[in-house]
This record gives sequence, C-alpha cells and structure tokens, in this order.
Amino acid sequence: MPNKRSAAKREKQEAVARGQEKYRAMSPAEFFSRYKELAGFSNPTRAVYQTIRELVENALDATDTHGILPVIRVVVEPARGVEGENRYTITVEDNGIGVPPTVMADAFGRVLYSSKYVIRQTRGMFGLGVKAAVIYGQQTAGQPVTVISAMEDSDYVYMKKLFIDINENKPRIVEEGQWRKRGRWHGTRVSITIEGDWRRARSRVIEYIKRTAIVAPYAEIHLVTPEGDVYIFPRMTRKMPKPPREAKPHPHGVNLEQFKMILQSTRARTLREVLVTEFQSVGEKSAVNFLREAGVSPDLNPKTLLRREYRDLLVRLVDKLRSYTGFRAPRSDYLSPIGADLIEIGLRRMFRPEFTAAVTRPARSYMGHPFIVEVGIAYGGSIPPREEPLLLRYANKIPLLYGEREDVAYKVVSSVNWKNYYVEFPAPLVVLVHIASTRIPYKEAGKESIGDVPEIESEIRAGVWEVARKLRIFLSRKRREAEIRRKIITLAKYIPEVARSLAMLGKPPEKWSPPKPEEEKMLVEALVRLVARYIELPETHDGGEDPVEIVKKIIAEVETK
Amino acid sequence: MPNKRSAAKREKQEAVARGQEKYRAMSPAEFFSRYKELAGFSNPTRAVYQTIRELVENALDATDTHGILPVIRVVVEPARGVEGENRYTITVEDNGIGVPPTVMADAFGRVLYSSKYVIRQTRGMFGLGVKAAVIYGQQTAGQPVTVISAMEDSDYVYMKKLFIDINENKPRIVEEGQWRKRGRWHGTRVSITIEGDWRRARSRVIEYIKRTAIVAPYAEIHLVTPEGDVYIFPRMTRKMPKPPREAKPHPHGVNLEQFKMILQSTRARTLREVLVTEFQSVGEKSAVNFLREAGVSPDLNPKTLLRREYRDLLVRLVDKLRSYTGFRAPRSDYLSPIGADLIEIGLRRMFRPEFTAAVTRPARSYMGHPFIVEVGIAYGGSIPPREEPLLLRYANKIPLLYGEREDVAYKVVSSVNWKNYYVEFPAPLVVLVHIASTRIPYKEAGKESIGDVPEIESEIRAGVWEVARKLRIFLSRKRREAEIRRKIITLAKYIPEVARSLAMLGKPPEKWSPPKPEEEKMLVEALVRLVARYIELPETHDGGEDPVEIVKKIIAEVETK
Repeated sequence: MPNKRSAAKREKQEAVARGQEKYRAMSPAEFFSRYKELAGFSNPTRAVYQTIRELVENALDATDTHGILPVIRVVVEPARGVEGENRYTITVEDNGIGVPPTVMADAFGRVLYSSKYVIRQTRGMFGLGVKAAVIYGQQTAGQPVTVISAMEDSDYVYMKKLFIDINENKPRIVEEGQWRKRGRWHGTRVSITIEGDWRRARSRVIEYIKRTAIVAPYAEIHLVTPEGDVYIFPRMTRKMPKPPREAKPHPHGVNLEQFKMILQSTRARTLREVLVTEFQSVGEKSAVNFLREAGVSPDLNPKTLLRREYRDLLVRLVDKLRSYTGFRAPRSDYLSPIGADLIEIGLRRMFRPEFTAAVTRPARSYMGHPFIVEVGIAYGGSIPPREEPLLLRYANKIPLLYGEREDVAYKVVSSVNWKNYYVEFPAPLVVLVHIASTRIPYKEAGKESIGDVPEIESEIRAGVWEVARKLRIFLSRKRREAEIRRKIITLAKYIPEVARSLAMLGKPPEKWSPPKPEEEKMLVEALVRLVARYIELPETHDGGEDPVEIVKKIIAEVETK
Repeated sequence: MPNKRSAAKREKQEAVARGQEKYRAMSPAEFFSRYKELAGFSNPTRAVYQTIRELVENALDATDTHGILPVIRVVVEPARGVEGENRYTITVEDNGIGVPPTVMADAFGRVLYSSKYVIRQTRGMFGLGVKAAVIYGQQTAGQPVTVISAMEDSDYVYMKKLFIDINENKPRIVEEGQWRKRGRWHGTRVSITIEGDWRRARSRVIEYIKRTAIVAPYAEIHLVTPEGDVYIFPRMTRKMPKPPREAKPHPHGVNLEQFKMILQSTRARTLREVLVTEFQSVGEKSAVNFLREAGVSPDLNPKTLLRREYRDLLVRLVDKLRSYTGFRAPRSDYLSPIGADLIEIGLRRMFRPEFTAAVTRPARSYMGHPFIVEVGIAYGGSIPPREEPLLLRYANKIPLLYGEREDVAYKVVSSVNWKNYYVEFPAPLVVLVHIASTRIPYKEAGKESIGDVPEIESEIRAGVWEVARKLRIFLSRKRREAEIRRKIITLAKYIPEVARSLAMLGKPPEKWSPPKPEEEKMLVEALVRLVARYIELPETHDGGEDPVEIVKKIIAEVETK
C-alpha cells in the first residue's frame, strides 16, 4: 500500500500548493499606479491630454466656482534636466483661491484626499485626477510635482515639491519653502513632468482648450506649446454665470450607509429634526408626515435607530425615504448651468453658422441628485457637412472628447430621425449637450462618458427635440422661401411683357404702339405691388425688407440672366 | 475712513470664506460605495448583472485556473426575511480551491485586498468586484454577505457573515462558525442580498452565462432564476486548456516605482543577479550586455541605486530597461488561450452555422505584458442576418456584454470592408474576439471594454483578416458553385435532345428514326461524363460526391420542372 499512500500524500501536497494563493492589500495609490488606464492614463498620448485637463479643471474649479474671473496659463515644454526623450513639463497656473498650506501636501500627494467630496457642482469629482498625474509623472520621468500656492487672505506664498509614497499613499516632501507675497497674487501653480507623446496629443489638447473656452467666455486662457506656439483665448465678457453652491443631501439620494453616518454625527435630538436640518427639501410638515406614514415616532432619538435590534426598521425607513413623494424636489438653484445665451454665442463664435438655437431645460433629478440639461444646435454657415451631427458633449462645463460612442448624449442624438426636421445628411449640423449636476454619472474615473441614466436620457431627448423643432421651422422657411422664389421668378419673367400688353390694351387697336418708358415703368410698379401683395413672403428675411423691393430684385436678377 | 476699512475687512472675510474648502480623505471602500457606477453598479439592472458576473468569474478563477473541472451553481431568489420590493439573494457556489480561513474576512470585506495582484491570466484583476457587490448589498438591502468555504486539504468548513466598514475599509464580522467536513467538499459559496431589477437583468444574465459556457465547455453551470426556471449548461468535454501560470515581471513592463520596490525587497547582491532572478526573459548574458550598454557595472550592489544621488541614473536605467531589444519576448507559455478548436465548437453549438473558422494568433506583448488574440468567425445557418456583424467579445475567457462601441474589437470589426470578403449586409455573420493576457487594458473598473492598445489592435486586425480570408474562400466557392450550377443546367437541358440527334446522325438519313431507349440512355451517359469532365466542379461538396452523379441530379431536377 505504500504507493497508494504516497499518491494520496502527493495529491494533498498539490492541493496545498493550489491553495497557496498570494493575498495582499493595495493602497489606493498603488491601485491607480498599477491600473493607470482607469484614470485615463492609458498611453503616452492620453497621458498628456489627461494631465492637462485635470490641471485645467482644477484651475477653473478654484476660480469661477468661487466667483473669480479666471486667468489660466497652460505651458507645455520639453523637460529640462531630465534624461530620456518625450519628457514634458506641464505647468498650469490660475488666479484662484489657492490651497491652504496645511492641506497642500495631502491635496497633491494623497490619492482619495480632496475638497470635491461635498454636494456641489464641480468639474472635479473623484479627488483622483491630479494625483494620478503625479503618480504617472514620478513613474515615467522620476520627477516630483511642484506646487506653488497663495491664498487670497494670506501674506505668504507656499511651495512644495513632493512624490507620492505609493505603498503608504501619502506625500513624501523633498523640498518646501515659503516667502512673503510681493504683490497681491493669489492662486495655484502646478508643474508635473511626464513621459508623453505631445505630437499626437497636440490636436486633442488644443481642441480641449478651445471647447473649454467656448462655454467659459468670461475666462482668459493661454496655451504655450513646446514648439513655442501661443494660443490665446481672450475674455469675451465679464458676465459670469452664478457660481454653484454646496447643498445638503436630498432624502431621495441617501443610502443606508450614509443615513447611518448622518445619525452618528448629527446633533439633532429627534428624527424629525434630523430630517429637517440634515437634508435639503424637507420641511417640518413633510418630515412629520413622512415619519407618521413610515410608522416611526417623529420624536424618536436618532441614536436609538443605530441599535442592532432596529436594523430592519432602519432599512425600511431608508427605503421609504428614497421613494417618498411628499418631499420637495432637489434644489436646482444651487446648480450653475451655462445658459442658452452663452451657448449660442459659443456656437456662433466657433462655427459662424447660419442658424443657432439653445435651450436650458428645467431642473430634474435622478436618485436625489439634481441636474439640468442644456442643448444647443447650429446649422449651416462654415460648418463642414458630415454624415452625422457633430456632437459637442459637456459635463459641469468641461468638454468630453473621448468615449463618445458610449455616451448617453450620443445614444440620443444618433437615434433622432433628422429627416423629420428637414435635415438631409451629409448636413452642416452641430449639436451641443451640457449636463450640470452635483453628481455626473461618469462611467470611468477618467471622466470620458456619461452613463444611461433614464432621467438624464429623457431630458436630453426633450432638449434635442426642442431645438430641433426650431431648426425645422428655420429649414422649412428656407424651403418655402426657395419655393416662393421660384414662383416669383415664374411670374416676374412675364411682368414687363404683361405691362407692355396692358399699356397697349388700354388704347384702341389703331393706336397700339409700344408704351412710353414712364408709362411702362408705372405699369410694372403696379404689377410688382400686385404680385408682392398676393405672395406669402418668407419671414426669414431679417429686418423686414420691403416685399416690393424683393420682387423687384428678383425681376432684376431674371432680366440680367 | 472707517467705511473703506470695513470694506477691506469685508473683502478679506469673503476671501477667507472662499478659501474654506472642506478637504478630507476617503477610504477606498467609501470611494467605491459613493461612485458605485465606476465598478459597474450604475443602476438596479446592472447591479444584478454585475453581482452575478463578479461571483461567477471568481468561481471560475478558483477552479479551472487551478486545473479543477468547474461545477458552478448560480441561484437568484427573492430575498427572504428582508423588507422592501426588488430584493434578491444571489448565491454562487463553486468546487474550487476555497479561501484560506485566515484571509476570508479580508478577501470579502476589504476593498483592494485580493489574490489577483500577481502576474497571471485571471478573470478578476482589480480585487474590487465582489467587495463592490457586498457594499452595494449592504447599502441597498442592509444585509451582510455570507461566505462558506472549505479548502481541499482542510478538514473544516468555515463560515463568516460580515459587513464592510465603509469608513475604515475593513470587515465587520457579525457571525462566524466552523465545522468538520462530512464529505470531501471543497469550494466557496457566497450569498449577497441586493436591491435589483431582475426582470430587466434577466436576459443579460442568461446571455452572460450562455457565452461563458461557450468558451468553457468543460464546465458544468446551473442557473436557477427567481421564477424557478433552471438552466443547465452541461459539461461537453473533460478536456481543459492548460491553466495559466504566474510569471515574473518582464523588463519592458516595469516602471520606476516597481523597479525601486524590487531593489528594496530583492536578496540578490548584484544588479546582474537582480535582472536574472527577479525578471522573466533575462539571461546571464543579456543582463550583462544590457548593463554594459547602459554604462552600469553588473556587479553594483542593488541597494546603492536607491541612494538619492543615484536618482537620475536610476531613471535612465529603467528607461533603457523598458526599451532594450536584447531581452527575450515576454513568456506567453504561461497564458491560457481558449484554442481554435474550442472556439469553433462553441460557435457551432450556439449558432449551427454553415461555416466556421477560428485562429489562435502567435503571442505578442505590449508594454511588457504578453497577450494572445484569438478570432473566430461563423456564417450562415441559423444566424439571423443583421446590418453589421454580431460581435462576441471575450477577455481572459469572460464575455463582455456592455460598452461594445468603445471596445478596440468593435473598432477593428466595424472598420473591415466586408465586401472584399464577399459579405453583403444584411448578412448572417458572427465574429468572436478573445484576448488572453496577464493584463487586460480595461477602460473601466467594471470590466466592460478594452482600450485602444496599438499592439492589440493590430493583432485583432490580423486575426480578423485571417478568418475573413477563409470565409472569402468559402463564399467564393459558394458563388462559383452557383455559377457552375447555372452552366450545367444550361448544358443539361440539351443533353437528352443532343443525345437523340447524335443517335440519328449516326445513321443515313433514310434510316432516321427515334433511338431505342437503351441507345439513348447510353448516349446520355456519355454526354454526362463529357460535361462532368469539362466542368470545374465545386469543392464545397463534402465527401467528394461523384461529378457524374451531380450532373445527373441536375438534369433530373431540370426535367421535372
């Protein structure tokens, strides 16, 4: 039997070996350093683009979100003193509120540490982007990030150079300093050196800055490229949209975990008070009504609900909280849309089209998160005709350039039957879709495309219909204008002839002779007025041109042919 | 001046208020609980799908990756004892290697804790999916996850029920136990209760299991739905592909941070030894050659390079390491492709097509990660004709159902000019693309679509061309067969007539009379042979049917018409 036993032993050993899986923990810094593509750093081209956009988005969040007219400088230059090809130093400077010196190291050196974890419409959302760029930089070029920042109310400017300790997920400062301000400068200046493919990224980066400028005409943005080209997007207006504001959570958007955290931290002494003070859109009355309907006493001590024996009640309560229809809708007055005017201005500036229209839809919400959809449309002019509409996507005022095909806006725009709106492809058609929300449902941490949230989808659809109908009116007028033109031409051809005939008919046959010029002119005038009166004139002629003039012009055109 | 001073004061106060941004850190558990959609949990439908796939993928990783023939049971049932609608308990049980009791709590209760953080081809990659499902479950249904697991070599079965502490990112066990095994069962059984929309998820889930079974015909998979329907995918073969194996990093895939970690942890005493022992594909000779070319002594103590004054040298060295062409290619023998045979069997089983072909491409690598592309094609039969090819995407043997439009495989397949391959849409065409790698470049933590890595893209293109050319040969034969058929028909129509004429021509005119039946038959036979000899016969007739018989059959068809 020794053989059988040793076979069993071997089998057992193999099983042990199989069970020896290596389990280990990863810090979030290591996670995003290992899976860089999840944060948008999937190749050297994207790395350049992603670094610039994360820095620019932070710069805008530090300015217009706080009511400051943005001045933003972006400089991309070959890295100095760093070996290896394709190393670029990317520097973005803003005139924003600055970063407090106490949190500076963490804000740039700790993944998942951020000021964006509040309920407010900001461009940044994940507290991830800049740190991912810093990690990418230190991995590929071995250089630390350099941050210089001064707050408005401070007399000092602070500087830190740091790496991110990947294992520990914390900043490792290699140099720091502070000095008294000479002027009144405040803002932040960040430099990151990365390995990247500028040549391929170039057009995307320029497109990104251009599209950013379109919806932020109150910002001044400079871009200096490694070739030394300077792109300046000057400020077009000092009028800024109302900045977004921070909000409390809406009861429809809360989950069990969050509700427990609120119960733990609240100073309220009754459940009713919790609902009224810790949430938005809940009044005394709706709080009491809701709790009564849920079968819970409004005067219950909130801490009681945290006891284990109340777990089922708590689950039920949160469940009802999320679906109760007696609360007001989420506050949308804290959101900051672009505005239909600015969208039309932006589209006109970019494309010089024949026609534009834009709409800011009323606020809606999904799962307790308020959002506003805006849609713009442009047609004709210098828009190059394409086989499908050119779609410009924006979320919280940032342009989205990648991932179009999986975006909810593409889904809607590509499913519209444009023939119903008199658009025949190839057509010179641009559609702009903007979503403003305290919570954009991005599909990726790299912020590329927006998921299929039914509420958002139906708002986009409604917005597209609204502007498309305006386009249809325009195109149908254009069509009618063309038709009428043809009719007028047909009639107009005969007017001089008819005039001559009429002149002669007024006389007895023996006196028939060509009319005198003044006579003929008079008759032509009369006929033109007649034609002008009976023809429905197109309304697209701005400034209400005299119909008589139009008919005359057409006759002139016909006669010269 | 008091007014001016108070204005300045107010301005300063406003500035202070502006600077009061709320900075804070988030644990990775809170991050993925807050941004659930990043892990694929974007709505109640996706939540059901995502929970099931993460559990099934873990179950397969615990079995076939370790050479065990998988038996996997998936049960979806209405949650018992939980209030609220749309609560389902999802249970997945496997016969895998089991989870060691010491790591069980962390493996299910700590985000970014996993056995998948090694260089090996596994379905799981991020150490995230199951924990995201656990968080989703506790947030929406308030229930803990239940895990029961037994390892092969252990005499005990262990059970734990736990929540994830979102703030601390650690497991909070609410119940646990252990008991002696009664039989020899080993494996893992996980139950998670979530709020979900089964009705909408249903078809996706079934599709997912079906496509999983296609490429794992050696697995037995059961699915029990809440309606009580039972789907059984029986084992079709006991032949399993060679399991993947763990590999060391390839020098082309290492970054600065990783190289530093290796230098810190290595026991090697010289740089040469580091390269040879800590990396794959580096021999003594190439290590020495490389270090000489880089201008670094092969005998340098690896710890020296970690000193600050050597930072520039280190950056340069890693840079060269990643691009040095003297190393062997990354090991692909540790990868586990599906195999062209299994792909063709799978396609036939699913579609009963007229034609299939499949190819396993040679191994390639991107950034030091080896990968193998496999492409299958199926045409005709019961495939419903569509306006574009039906694309089946797989990565490390798991089907990808969402995010198709942004996937590199879609990019390739949709850009093929299928007309060149004689395919005219709508066509009954299916294309299957599988990528096996130690590192799939997913775009999202939810594993939906694969990024545009140029090396992968060009391999997919080559694979598609290869099978498409085979399809072209098939379709061109089919076309030629149809043409030849027409020719034969044309000739065949006249054969009896010609036979009769020939019979008469053999005699003097006065003896002209219809030939006797035997005579005519003989002549027809001769003519058929003649036609059969001169016509290029289509090769698509399996089993090499006698050409003479074919011509006869066609004549018979013609005569009965």
